[in-house]
Amino acid sequence: MADQKATNVHWHEGDITREHREKTLGHKGATLWFTGLSGSGKSTVAVELEGTLHEMGVTSYRLDGDNVRMGINKNLGFSAEDRTENIRRIGEVSKLFVDSGVIALSSFISPYRADRDQVRELHEAAGMEFIEIFVDCSLEAAESRDPKGLYKKARAGEIKNFTGIDDPYEAPSKPEIHLHSDQQELAEEVQEILALLRERGIISA
Amino acid sequence: MADQKATNVHWHEGDITREHREKTLGHKGATLWFTGLSGSGKSTVAVELEGTLHEMGVTSYRLDGDNVRMGINKNLGFSAEDRTENIRRIGEVSKLFVDSGVIALSSFISPYRADRDQVRELHEAAGMEFIEIFVDCSLEAAESRDPKGLYKKARAGEIKNFTGIDDPYEAPSKPEIHLHSDQQELAEEVQEILALLRERGIISA
Repeated sequence: MADQKATNVHWHEGDITREHREKTLGHKGATLWFTGLSGSGKSTVAVELEGTLHEMGVTSYRLDGDNVRMGINKNLGFSAEDRTENIRRIGEVSKLFVDSGVIALSSFISPYRADRDQVRELHEAAGMEFIEIFVDCSLEAAESRDPKGLYKKARAGEIKNFTGIDDPYEAPSKPEIHLHSDQQELAEEVQEILALLRERGIISA
Repeated sequence: MADQKATNVHWHEGDITREHREKTLGHKGATLWFTGLSGSGKSTVAVELEGTLHEMGVTSYRLDGDNVRMGINKNLGFSAEDRTENIRRIGEVSKLFVDSGVIALSSFISPYRADRDQVRELHEAAGMEFIEIFVDCSLEAAESRDPKGLYKKARAGEIKNFTGIDDPYEAPSKPEIHLHSDQQELAEEVQEILALLRERGIISA
């Protein structure tokens, strides 16, 4: 009986650890950090990957502007200080997900190298996988897509400090994965990521 | 072949939702919020429950001072404002875990009713389960345990605004579960929580 089992059987190795949770889930936790210009296709890749992982029985969770800027970071603006704090908090939340055994798909422009490197160090210091995925795309291509009409507003001066227009995007120097979303097929991009996840033993073949 | 399957088979119902993730995990996401005095036994119950859930194949994740105060909330102190922001952020993180399909075991003194109620509203507005677990214990019993030596320091005036000594603990008026940790067996407390999780369909029998 489940009731009996729950109280009479005990784990004997102390607290439940990340390894215990990963065993239940059948895969390892990791943060996949998608960085790139607005309109570069970060979310498109993350969504496609999420669906593919789901079909493989892998639990991933997407962190993006929708569930973060309106939630945990709703008291942050867009000053340099607040942008750094924005990424710091997202990095900490991603790390909690890795610790829970889930694969965090964190998709943010995150234009500053120092901020991203801090998130990487946070993970690596804890022995956690951090995979930086540079969703590279020419400004021209991203601007021509302009899915949210933001480039148009930035060009018109209605949005200030817009990445790629009047604020810099600092490209990763050594990303684990460098995608070219203006030249590659989506399926190919997803395969490239899955290959690395297998290579690192995060998911099984 | 796994490689082929990943690109050629697609989910056709749009984005992956919480329901998709819960199906993979075999249980629903929920926040179990443990509140009570320092030394009341919140962590003891949460750890025991975590182990029991693990044996049932249920993925839960404990949020507590150790992984929150040193991480996402490391830039917060103990002023009234910072305490409220502390609980707000923990509530938002808990909600993200629920959305991922995981059971969040959030264990914090969280002495103010208004702060806890805000976390409840956050969950309920999103159609998510929030279960408040009042780990009730007399101040005398908690103080006599004093596992971290904090009451001693508070009595000596070395810690100010300590809950139960010179700062109030506002007991929940309608907690989903009211434990009496100075009178109940640990196994009984865990069974009480499991019974409610089954009753609400969060876990199966």
